[in-house]
This record gives sequence, structure tokens and C-alpha cells, in this order.
Amino acid sequence: MIKTVGYAAQTPTSPLAPFHFERRDLRTNDIAMEILYCGVCHSDLHWSRNDWGWTIFPAVPGHEIVGRVTQVGSDVTRYKVGDHVAVGCMVDSCKHCDQCDKGEEQLCREGNTGTYGGFDRFTNDYTLGGYAKHLVVREDFALRMPEGLDLAQAAPLLCAGITTYSPLRTWNVGPGSRVGVIGLGGLGHMAVKLAAAMGAKVTVLSRTADKADDARALGADGLLVSSDEQAMAGAANSFDLIIDTVPVKHDLNPYMPLLDVDGTLVIVGQIGPVAEPSTVPLVLGRRRIAGSPIGGIRETQEMLDFCAEKNVLPDVEMIRMDEINHAFERMEKSDVRYRFVIDMASLDMASA
Amino acid sequence: MIKTVGYAAQTPTSPLAPFHFERRDLRTNDIAMEILYCGVCHSDLHWSRNDWGWTIFPAVPGHEIVGRVTQVGSDVTRYKVGDHVAVGCMVDSCKHCDQCDKGEEQLCREGNTGTYGGFDRFTNDYTLGGYAKHLVVREDFALRMPEGLDLAQAAPLLCAGITTYSPLRTWNVGPGSRVGVIGLGGLGHMAVKLAAAMGAKVTVLSRTADKADDARALGADGLLVSSDEQAMAGAANSFDLIIDTVPVKHDLNPYMPLLDVDGTLVIVGQIGPVAEPSTVPLVLGRRRIAGSPIGGIRETQEMLDFCAEKNVLPDVEMIRMDEINHAFERMEKSDVRYRFVIDMASLDMASA
Repeated sequence: MIKTVGYAAQTPTSPLAPFHFERRDLRTNDIAMEILYCGVCHSDLHWSRNDWGWTIFPAVPGHEIVGRVTQVGSDVTRYKVGDHVAVGCMVDSCKHCDQCDKGEEQLCREGNTGTYGGFDRFTNDYTLGGYAKHLVVREDFALRMPEGLDLAQAAPLLCAGITTYSPLRTWNVGPGSRVGVIGLGGLGHMAVKLAAAMGAKVTVLSRTADKADDARALGADGLLVSSDEQAMAGAANSFDLIIDTVPVKHDLNPYMPLLDVDGTLVIVGQIGPVAEPSTVPLVLGRRRIAGSPIGGIRETQEMLDFCAEKNVLPDVEMIRMDEINHAFERMEKSDVRYRFVIDMASLDMASA
Repeated sequence: MIKTVGYAAQTPTSPLAPFHFERRDLRTNDIAMEILYCGVCHSDLHWSRNDWGWTIFPAVPGHEIVGRVTQVGSDVTRYKVGDHVAVGCMVDSCKHCDQCDKGEEQLCREGNTGTYGGFDRFTNDYTLGGYAKHLVVREDFALRMPEGLDLAQAAPLLCAGITTYSPLRTWNVGPGSRVGVIGLGGLGHMAVKLAAAMGAKVTVLSRTADKADDARALGADGLLVSSDEQAMAGAANSFDLIIDTVPVKHDLNPYMPLLDVDGTLVIVGQIGPVAEPSTVPLVLGRRRIAGSPIGGIRETQEMLDFCAEKNVLPDVEMIRMDEINHAFERMEKSDVRYRFVIDMASLDMASA
């Protein structure tokens, strides 16, 4: 077993604190990595506090993981010691169903294994995430970090990046596409950057005009104030795709008429109910409401390569591991532009 | 002007009764037709009673119209006197926007002109529908009745038929497609017949097993009892497309997990709110909720030709014009299998 240290919640109400634990000995198709950086996703907070009701404690969050290979199993072919690699939201899947065959492991028929909060497919051990010094992972679920992509800044691509990249690809966004983005947080700011890098005309939808400069700085063509009824009416039928990153229950009805015929609003933020939608804009304009999870491993690698090529990187604020509880508090107030990343060098094996 | 007689509601609460009125003199691109048959759509009832709040009285309903050409304008090229023709839910559109250019006049940017309840684009006269002996219509909005298609039975194809045919085509239903149909009324029974004729495996979704024999008789492979939780769980991920014909507010959540990855539930019945959907099945299975209106003129003609080729016809109950009020009452109780059609020969010009 590989001794490591991380930060864990011991109960739903306790702050994250140092936690010594072990990673499994390498299987033949595993790699071990030293974690260098880990992004802080809103899910980490929900899970640490058992907001979804299925957390097992102690709980180590973290699924935006970047590191360096330290050891490889005997059958590993893709990676060697020293390679920079990344791990996102899943660490395994059945690898024999139709979805896995298509490279859509996130949609595995048997369910993928979460990087944290999942159960190992062989030992049934509860998985612990990336707020730690080390990780052992099946090589098929590791991504290669492209040359030239800043390792620290890139971490949030593994969740926020792929969660917005995947629907942009599924709905064929490219030059000339008209894309709206609701919400300008971790996911939203990546949706703007990625869609702009794909050549789309991007508009941020926000309740106030406060974020207009930020939106443009991220690559948006403009900002549409959703509380301005006249502006909203004037924007009817003007979007091919709207990426909705709002992470709470909300009303889709004001946004639906903004979609052009056959346009789609894709939900990537809220997991739970949305307010009663009217079918009128759906039926009269053949519009659609959809959802989208993360992407598969192949698509995640494609996204990393795309970001390296186009120089697309999240805007991040680096923190030390021991600042995580304060970071959670700030995240709850949306006081972050736009993603915290933990510098794992701040976590010392001995002193933690 | 062309004198005619029809059945009209004079107020929201008065029964339909004989009403003498005139159709316009033919414009150069118009045809006049003697109406032989007219289907009875649920919308006719809503509109006669001003359920939507925008009916102008007297109101002549009817938009599933089959008849014979009696006169043609000087520029008419497609039709000649004696041809059997049909008219559906729209009688005009701008014909110069991108949607009209694509043959999607139902999605005309300026709005199409309804067969009833619309306003003529030249005179602004209120349009009156097909519960009448005669109709004058722009030739571009008339359909050719294919040889061999029973004229009386075919009438409901003009609304119920195209409303279900269009989404089946939009979502590429063909041999091997797995199609669910919620609701077995006028729209639902056509969805079953059309999807089966396209080679799909069709399942009717119904609260009880009562309609299992009917479903199979219409061409379905089976019936799934939506109140049977075990059966519903067993049918998870088993549909590519669900056509939802329920015409009232309802809950989509029990149906969404039945869709396979990237599957779509298309609403064609309810115009108004649906209950709060959960985003969980949307996000986790990249599933979609959509709406669909009628189809364009080209697609409507394609549907009629398809029905003639495949011998697909609605199940109808023929009524006399003076039975319409009783038919409305029965329709409200879903006491019709599956569509009433008025035999317009029962309406006499003089005696009405």
C-alpha cells in the first residue's frame, strides 16, 4: 500500500482536516501519481457536507487532478514515470458496454466509478479523491497533459472544462454558432472561453449588467441582461445553443424563446428540479431542453489538446491546502473568479 | 364572393349551429374547393369555447379538410377542377423567410395564417375553418390527395397525422427505432400507426393495461403500464423517442428514465405548463425534452403520399354535421376511437 495524506471531512459538519490514508498497491494496469494541483469544484463542497445524502466519511473530495507519474504497473503502455497526467471525475467503468465502446465511459451502462464517492470495481473500497498527495488510477482513466499547458491553471479543465466542452461538441458548435451562457461561475466562464475558441458568437446571460466587462474579457461578444424584458424580447430566436450553468432550481421559461428553431438549452449546473416549463416555446419553435454530464476519456483528452492548441485556460486563484475551508466559504458566496486550485506542494507528508 | 354555409359557435357557451357566410373571390393563386369531409380536432372544441381567450365570434372550426377543386385562379398551375385536395392547419405564410424557404411554413418567422382563427395577410379578414361546404385557399397551401387514399378516413391526417409524422421524421425514426407513445387518442393512435409503418418497434405507454389489445391492433408491439413501477424500472433506457400526446398538464419524470442515452421525449399534446422536471435523467443520460408543431407543406404532402403507399389511415367515426355538438361532448370524455370525421354531404346549402 502507498501511504499518503490528504484533507478529509470526518462528519458533514466538520471542516476538512489532514487525514492519513493509503492508496492501493498498483494493479498491472494502474499508474501511481504525485498530485501537484487539484481544482475545487462545487461538488466537493456538497459531498463533504453530505448534501446529497450518500457520503461515507471520512470523505476526501477532489476530481480536477493534475500530477506526475511516479510508478507504473507491469501492463501499462501509455505512461512512464515523470509524465504529467490528469484525472477527472471518474476512475473506472465496465469498459465492455456499448457506451464504453463508443468512448462514452461517463455514460457506462453499469455506471462509472467516481473519483471520489465511488466503489472500486474489484475491492469495493470507497474511492477517495484528489485533495491528497498521491493517487493510484487505472491508466485508461488518466489523461496526458499536453506540452505547454500550465499544469496549475489547467486543473479545472478536468471537470468544469469537460462539462462545458462536451455539450458544445455534442451540439456541433463551431464558427458562426450563436451560443448563450447562463451563469458566470466555474462552469460558465469555461463555457464562454471554449465556445469563443471554437469560433462561436458568445453572449453571457446575467440578471444585471455588472459582469459585462468580465464577459467580454473572457471572450464573449456581449452580455444580455435577463431582467430587461425589452432586451430579452429583442433577442428572441437568436441562439442556437444555451449552456445553462445555474446550480440551483430556476425557471427556464424566460430563456426558451431566445432559442432559434431547433435550438437547445443544455443544463449542466442544476441536479434536481427546475421550475415548471411551458411547452409553448418548445412546441411552437421545436425547441429542446437537454442535460449533459461530463465527457468520455477520449473527449476529455481532445479537450485538453484543444485547450493547449488554442491557449484556453481557466481563470484560477491558487490556494494552499490548509485554506480549503475558507475557500469553501467564499465559493458559497460566489466569491471566486472563477475557480480555486489547491497547490498540493503546500501539503507536507510529515507535518500535515 | 362565394356563398357558403357552415357550423359556427356564436358565443363561447352556445352550441355550434348553421351559419351562412361568404368565402372571398379567388385571387389569381387561389383555388376554391367543395369540402367533402372535415376531421374533428380537440383544438376545434377549445377554440369554439374560447378556452385560449382569443377566439373571435362567430367561429367556424375545422382544419382537417378534404375536398374537390371547383374553381382555380388564373395563375394556378398545380390543380385543376375536379382534383381531390386537402387543407390542414394553415392557409398562408410569408413565403420569403428562411423557414418558408426551407419548406417549414409552420415555423414562418412572421407566423403562419391559421386555417381558422388567423387573419388573412391581405384583407386582415378573420379566417373561418372547414366545418363548411366551401373553402378558398392559396394553392401553395393545398395538398394533393394521393390516388387510393380513402378521402373520408384520410381527413385527420391533416392535423393528427402530420403532428405525429413530423417529429418521427425530425428524430429519424426508421427500422429498428424504439418508439414509445404516451396517450392513445387522435394523435396517439396515429403516432403508433405511423411509427410502425416506418419500421419502428412501438410501445404504448398507458396507466392501465386496458388498451393493450387496441395498441397491438394499431400496430404496437406492446403496452407498458406506467403505473407498474417494476415494469417501468425494467424498461429503463429502452426508447430512442417518446411521443407524448397527453393534452393536459402532466409529469414527465416517470417517463424520462425510459429514454436511452441521447433519447428525446417530444411533446405534441400539451400547450401550457408541465410539472417540474428533474434534471437528473437529463444530465445523467444526456436525454432531451422537446416540442414539435405540425409540419410544413412539403412534409405534409410527403406524409399523405407515405400513408397512401403504406396504407396508413386513421380509425374514424363518421358523423353528420348536425351531430357535432354531441361529438364534442363525447370527445371531452375520450369516447371516440379515434377521430370523428364530418361527412359534409350531410350539410345542405338550402336547408341548413
